[in-house]
Amino acid sequence: MALRKGRHTILFETPPSLRAFAAIGSDMEAQGPLGQCFDLIERDAYFGQDSWERAESQMQERVVRRVLEKAQLPPSQVQGAFAGDLLNQCVGSTYGLRGLGVPYVGLFGACSTMAEALVAAAVFLEAGAMERAVACTSSHFCTAERQFRYPLEYGGQRPPTAQWTATAAGAALLDRGERPPFIRGAVVGAIRDLGITDAANMGAAMAPAAADTLARFFADTGLRPQQFDLVVTGDLGLVGSRLLRQLLEEEGFPLDRCHADCGLMLYDRQKQDVHAGGSGCGCSAAVLCGHLLPLLRQGTLQNLLFVATGALMSPTVVQQGESIPGIAHLVWLSHKKSGEVASCRC
Amino acid sequence: MALRKGRHTILFETPPSLRAFAAIGSDMEAQGPLGQCFDLIERDAYFGQDSWERAESQMQERVVRRVLEKAQLPPSQVQGAFAGDLLNQCVGSTYGLRGLGVPYVGLFGACSTMAEALVAAAVFLEAGAMERAVACTSSHFCTAERQFRYPLEYGGQRPPTAQWTATAAGAALLDRGERPPFIRGAVVGAIRDLGITDAANMGAAMAPAAADTLARFFADTGLRPQQFDLVVTGDLGLVGSRLLRQLLEEEGFPLDRCHADCGLMLYDRQKQDVHAGGSGCGCSAAVLCGHLLPLLRQGTLQNLLFVATGALMSPTVVQQGESIPGIAHLVWLSHKKSGEVASCRC
Repeated sequence: MALRKGRHTILFETPPSLRAFAAIGSDMEAQGPLGQCFDLIERDAYFGQDSWERAESQMQERVVRRVLEKAQLPPSQVQGAFAGDLLNQCVGSTYGLRGLGVPYVGLFGACSTMAEALVAAAVFLEAGAMERAVACTSSHFCTAERQFRYPLEYGGQRPPTAQWTATAAGAALLDRGERPPFIRGAVVGAIRDLGITDAANMGAAMAPAAADTLARFFADTGLRPQQFDLVVTGDLGLVGSRLLRQLLEEEGFPLDRCHADCGLMLYDRQKQDVHAGGSGCGCSAAVLCGHLLPLLRQGTLQNLLFVATGALMSPTVVQQGESIPGIAHLVWLSHKKSGEVASCRC
Repeated sequence: MALRKGRHTILFETPPSLRAFAAIGSDMEAQGPLGQCFDLIERDAYFGQDSWERAESQMQERVVRRVLEKAQLPPSQVQGAFAGDLLNQCVGSTYGLRGLGVPYVGLFGACSTMAEALVAAAVFLEAGAMERAVACTSSHFCTAERQFRYPLEYGGQRPPTAQWTATAAGAALLDRGERPPFIRGAVVGAIRDLGITDAANMGAAMAPAAADTLARFFADTGLRPQQFDLVVTGDLGLVGSRLLRQLLEEEGFPLDRCHADCGLMLYDRQKQDVHAGGSGCGCSAAVLCGHLLPLLRQGTLQNLLFVATGALMSPTVVQQGESIPGIAHLVWLSHKKSGEVASCRC
């Protein structure tokens, strides 16, 4: 039975272990500062397929199969796949995972999907409803551009606030084992909409949701940002990250130097021309599964808050003049299964 | 802690109560055989809004607010809203529920969403992660037609296998109380794809998933279809229902007269020209929340299996030649919280 501390934060009595994890990316991601962290890099952005949508599905299938290989488990030993993505009707996930035969819990959380999937999978394990589950998501620059913005061939100009959708996917396998890291806590975020209507400024649309979720967690638990090695958002980019720090400072929870953002970690903003940073479900998923979880496993990081953020709009409703609602789900990841939280080393 | 019986079926140790439920529909639904079962009927398919998408969001907002009224609860007393719909990026749900301030778990299960939402919410309650949660979904004929098929003004001809997307929504509030009905068990479905490529024959695409999920449940629990008052699928329509009965008979679980399908209950197929029946997330949600749950509350129905089915395709990938993957999630609803399952009265 999970302990509920305060009104929003879920604390797990039996924190699930992240037994295995993997990340996949393409050329742009390989050239970035975390290029060495990927388990799989495919230079061909089509991933051997004949459409961008099939390429994205292929990424999810490959990254989940790699995770199962690392965990030395056949798909039949996994009771649930928690996945979703940005594509209409989440076809990156449904077509990517249909061949596995694993019970499927389809999610839609836009770029917050990796955190949403980890929270939901952890709760299913805590309830005893599953023994093992996979959390997975993806994004692809080419599917996202044509669906949310312009045809690639059009060569649309991107404003400085725009972010670059990562061609990447990440997956993690949760079980009841003893291998660090563990999921100790979680917050399911509420939708926040402060009236941003600029679809090329997602960071600003999502920052209030991230601030809200983090403030709930700190208020509920009595913990402070400085007790964590890192508070990692994904993906607010440059614009949203500044807004988040400002909003949380106003709430009485200054992040100081503890904050990092997956959208600012995946690419070299100066050299790679990604404007305000990376984005897309696959950005935070790959940074988490390729870079952060290994550091948590070896104990280099002891405690980390992973706060993935999503913009819950569609092109149709934005064209109808709607503003952009944001959401942020939080996962507390820890090298240890229990015990006090020491001060941050940052 | 949920008991897991067999490999797939979740049996709840503390079956959540469905404290309140409500359904909303429009003109077509009011004229059907279940017209009297709706809590709210709005003759104007725009629901007072200026776009079909806003109309669909409005339905979700109204039906959830009605459920909260019936439960005499403010939104602040609810820790989770589990919702999704057919629209790109599930905007029916995100825009419909953004004003509530309730933590939001976005789902994508196409027309299986109501069952998926009930399963996920029940597991969150069982884990102790939430005290109260809402499960909700919607569909709208006009948003679905223009997104999945043709512009309404085009007046496209519909083949006999096609189903009519319901303009409807349903919502239910789960808590740990003692008011019947209760959710005693659940199965998270696996994706099944037998190669159907005709987007106007969803029933055939989804029937194998429904058969698979039901067979897993019967095999896991040792229960037989005849021990339930009803096995209700949603929405296989005429074509898919026949296939389901045939497939389950081959598996050794003949449904006999215990089977009903929400797509065949909501409309009068002869008089209302809906071809193979109703469909859309809102169809099974409204039939469940407006018609079946009241019968379970009063004990007219004692045990019921609600198996909502979804077709997990997008127009883009079907145009690329892909086949249509189906999924079906199962919820075992009961007038009693525990005890043996008697024989069916059907």
